[in-house]
Amino acid sequence: MEQLIVIKIGGNVIDNTPVLEKFLSDLCVIDGPKILVHGGGKLATELSTSLGIETKMVEGRRITDDATIRIVTMTYAGFINKTIVAKINACGGNAIGLSGVDASLIPAARRPVKDIDYGWVGDILASRINTNLLSALLSAGLTPVIAPISGTAEGHLLNINADTIAQSLAVSMSSLYQTTLLYCFEKKGVLSDVRDENSVIPLIRISEAAELKANGTIGSGMIPKIDNACRAVSDGVSQVIIGRSDDIISIANNKHGYGTRISH
Amino acid sequence: MEQLIVIKIGGNVIDNTPVLEKFLSDLCVIDGPKILVHGGGKLATELSTSLGIETKMVEGRRITDDATIRIVTMTYAGFINKTIVAKINACGGNAIGLSGVDASLIPAARRPVKDIDYGWVGDILASRINTNLLSALLSAGLTPVIAPISGTAEGHLLNINADTIAQSLAVSMSSLYQTTLLYCFEKKGVLSDVRDENSVIPLIRISEAAELKANGTIGSGMIPKIDNACRAVSDGVSQVIIGRSDDIISIANNKHGYGTRISH
Repeated sequence: MEQLIVIKIGGNVIDNTPVLEKFLSDLCVIDGPKILVHGGGKLATELSTSLGIETKMVEGRRITDDATIRIVTMTYAGFINKTIVAKINACGGNAIGLSGVDASLIPAARRPVKDIDYGWVGDILASRINTNLLSALLSAGLTPVIAPISGTAEGHLLNINADTIAQSLAVSMSSLYQTTLLYCFEKKGVLSDVRDENSVIPLIRISEAAELKANGTIGSGMIPKIDNACRAVSDGVSQVIIGRSDDIISIANNKHGYGTRISH
Repeated sequence: MEQLIVIKIGGNVIDNTPVLEKFLSDLCVIDGPKILVHGGGKLATELSTSLGIETKMVEGRRITDDATIRIVTMTYAGFINKTIVAKINACGGNAIGLSGVDASLIPAARRPVKDIDYGWVGDILASRINTNLLSALLSAGLTPVIAPISGTAEGHLLNINADTIAQSLAVSMSSLYQTTLLYCFEKKGVLSDVRDENSVIPLIRISEAAELKANGTIGSGMIPKIDNACRAVSDGVSQVIIGRSDDIISIANNKHGYGTRISH
């Protein structure tokens, strides 16, 4: 099977223009099919503040009322998505910006209200991801750039977690491609010593993860990321890599000390 | 050649939710390949006002400074585009929202400064429109929904006139499809008596247009629209129709009294 890389970038890349521009020009150098999923960064919060709309977060998730779904759609699917696409294409890439509503790429449903009403926050209907469209775009040499917005079956826009989109897309595309999922964060990889940036653990096998968590090698802050990565690998992704956006060329070239691979 | 219809809607449709929703559900009923181009409406101006950014218009064109290009990209390519796509898909359509930067669909250049500096306003490089991508999407049964945003070769976003996008796309696609360009405005068609909504002129041949302008049958307010329509027909579009968004099903069915056709 052909190889595919699904890359997730978040606020630490998006909010820093020089870092974002270096990342996007590096991305253009990496051959082969790629999908880029981006989060939102601080722009939505800044716009809300400027408009006098209160930002409410619960456990890191944005409570998305009527005013907020407009703001996140404007910032994520509008300014951030088109800025990234324009910059990739200016570097000689061939990106196409999409959200989950486009061609019903990522069907979703509003999250049911239990203890918390998240508002217009959605959960992905993973079995219905439009892998045919993504595959056709990739075959045409395009790099889909996905904003974390989708919609209900009735056509109401929804705010979706970008990490979850990246994971769901990577799992779905694993039926068609040998898929690597790369989460960019602020460190070179998972560190065996949090005080030493050079103590990157190069490889974590999912069979070893439980022991590395139990003996403290994987710090508590990394546990949710590692758990998600192990689940993605169990669900069909060939490998998950956790590393720094600044290092994607070194990561793509398997250079030692850059990125932690989680695999079978 | 297969038929294609390129439809332009502006603020009079976008700003009125019931009118927009009826139009989009009617659109889903019309068979065959379609491209929808939308303008911006009043949302960008409202957002600018809320943020304390002055809106400067010269001859109907928005002066687009650094703050304004962010606002129009957020509103046009973000909220309006994704709202339209989500609503079409909820009606059983299969829309994909794009801007001119996506897959370098509509390459553009910043307008040179002569008497007026329009800022980040762009002119389309019509010979380089990505007709292959549009054709592939149409063949896959998708309806492209185009926001009037593009970018420079260096990757800076640009604000583009939506009427011009519709016209340029229709002309470019005429090499592949028998193309109809439909401009939606607030009246049933071009009226021979502006006080009588039922005096729609059903057909204007481009050879007759000069005489109809000279003898006053075409009112002065309609002359720029008719001149643009004649130019589109001269450049390869099969026909241009000027009519009301509310009437697109009647227009598509050639019902008498709905829409003015401009053709050879």
